[in-house]
Amino acid sequence: MFEPFWKEVGDDATVKISGWEKMSYTSSCDDDICWFLEPEFANEVARLHRIVNNAATDGRYIIVGVGSTQMIHATLHALASIELRHPVNVVSAAPYYSMYPGIVDLMKSGLYHWAGDAAAFRGDDNFIELVCSPNNPDGTIRHAILGKEAGKRVHDMAYYWPHYSPMRGPADHDIMLFTLSKATGHAGTRIGWALVKNKEVAREMAKFITLNTIGVSKDSQVRAATILKVISDGYEFPKPNGAPQFFHFGQHKLAYRWRRLRRAVQESGQFILPRFSPEFCEFFKEYAETYPGFAWLRCEDQKINDCEDFFKRINVLTRSGKHFGFDE
Amino acid sequence: MFEPFWKEVGDDATVKISGWEKMSYTSSCDDDICWFLEPEFANEVARLHRIVNNAATDGRYIIVGVGSTQMIHATLHALASIELRHPVNVVSAAPYYSMYPGIVDLMKSGLYHWAGDAAAFRGDDNFIELVCSPNNPDGTIRHAILGKEAGKRVHDMAYYWPHYSPMRGPADHDIMLFTLSKATGHAGTRIGWALVKNKEVAREMAKFITLNTIGVSKDSQVRAATILKVISDGYEFPKPNGAPQFFHFGQHKLAYRWRRLRRAVQESGQFILPRFSPEFCEFFKEYAETYPGFAWLRCEDQKINDCEDFFKRINVLTRSGKHFGFDE
Repeated sequence: MFEPFWKEVGDDATVKISGWEKMSYTSSCDDDICWFLEPEFANEVARLHRIVNNAATDGRYIIVGVGSTQMIHATLHALASIELRHPVNVVSAAPYYSMYPGIVDLMKSGLYHWAGDAAAFRGDDNFIELVCSPNNPDGTIRHAILGKEAGKRVHDMAYYWPHYSPMRGPADHDIMLFTLSKATGHAGTRIGWALVKNKEVAREMAKFITLNTIGVSKDSQVRAATILKVISDGYEFPKPNGAPQFFHFGQHKLAYRWRRLRRAVQESGQFILPRFSPEFCEFFKEYAETYPGFAWLRCEDQKINDCEDFFKRINVLTRSGKHFGFDE
Repeated sequence: MFEPFWKEVGDDATVKISGWEKMSYTSSCDDDICWFLEPEFANEVARLHRIVNNAATDGRYIIVGVGSTQMIHATLHALASIELRHPVNVVSAAPYYSMYPGIVDLMKSGLYHWAGDAAAFRGDDNFIELVCSPNNPDGTIRHAILGKEAGKRVHDMAYYWPHYSPMRGPADHDIMLFTLSKATGHAGTRIGWALVKNKEVAREMAKFITLNTIGVSKDSQVRAATILKVISDGYEFPKPNGAPQFFHFGQHKLAYRWRRLRRAVQESGQFILPRFSPEFCEFFKEYAETYPGFAWLRCEDQKINDCEDFFKRINVLTRSGKHFGFDE
């Protein structure tokens, strides 16, 4: 989706690594917690968050991971390790990201296990709530629904960027997860990061990544830094020739796709898409629409019982609602 | 250690990736098992194994991972998932790689757990034996010590390359693990791979990596392919100017270090290093010495109880024998 933007950018986004560079396990940062964090990557992460103003970074620890998927594993492992009662219940309000159950139960860990829809959770305070906001799959802005005084929360903010959603100011949660794949489109680079308030949690996360993969590819971190820098430079030092700026490009692309999708859905008369009111975007400095990365499509036709199956027959690939804690 | 070689190689080993390249989660391979495997990486892995003749690749599935550390997780998860009785006992003959216990028990998985020294294992056939050969830390050539008719074996062959050990022909085990860090020195690239005979095991390993990190950095795979190609080209198409060849360079470097270490140890009269007989190396086509990546140093001085502590006082960093299933 964003490939044409990066083609237009050209050489500024190219990364070049000599055979003798970045050979070591360790990085040159003096970070005593995340010893494998490349300083240029950490700097560009903090810089882009400052420019977009979507998340507080001051006084936060930055932990890098192999995509936000490894960040989720690292976060659950860290929070559950600190907790005394095992297994900890991991919940998320339905419809939830369809990979959460598989990720949480992958290792059949004794530390934690998937406990389903947060709205249906009837346990005590021994839980971790995954709060995805804007939410995958339905694009809504989410808040934790279980009691704040107890349990622990992880905010998965993969889609909290201006092309998907109006920016409502900097988020300020205990643990916030981001990923290059959704921010810039570079899924193949496998880079995610966490902003973490608590030092002990940050340390436990880095320890997990040390024993899971002994750190994170330096090549990917260098490339991610290059990519993030192009985006930030585009806003801090706009080129006089009116070169495209990433979030503007991304929003335009998503708007175009959503327009076409809404038209097709409207013409069919059989489906319902979520509606979002325009909100003031503090990044674009104007009212902006919400354009989720996914469309959460509800079927109104009583004759269609299995929506995924219906679409498969007409060569449209979808994922059934049942994977998101809903029905077919 | 190998950085000077890569400096001398120069531009041939440089990787260059444009902003619009390798953005996707998926790779362009038609591999239906390891869907994130870059074809150029897979080709260079198979090519180098053919040239060095250290491992059979025909009919094997190649699985790529984030270093051989993730490969170990993936292998244990795959083998234990196929097994019916949980937890499976994971063992390795002491002295064993000091990270095995931590890696195995990281997730406190219900599928498997660390059960210590293989030589002391008294269970039935419900085990997985990790066979590290040449062995980290002591450099010996290892064979599985528990009954072949039962249990499962994983061969960790990180050091089975000509600079460390004479090549005795292609290894032909069910599951063989390799890593770029030991083969070429590029630890920061976080690339490991497995050669796997059984299709179901290979599929389960790829499934694990999908849910652990949704695949492996494309940038790292592309760089690894570039690096491996330089080594293979050096032997298949040697340059007329007598440019250095990697395994020759590496062996020379290790020989120099071991010579100095053996001299220092001999002069001290307090320590014993392993001795290896020269063996015919089928790669160098001559008798060659063994030069392990680590030195397994035994202290003979009765006044020294804690070897790591003794060395720390004289500013030499070591790792105590107790981490390897031995004593201090």
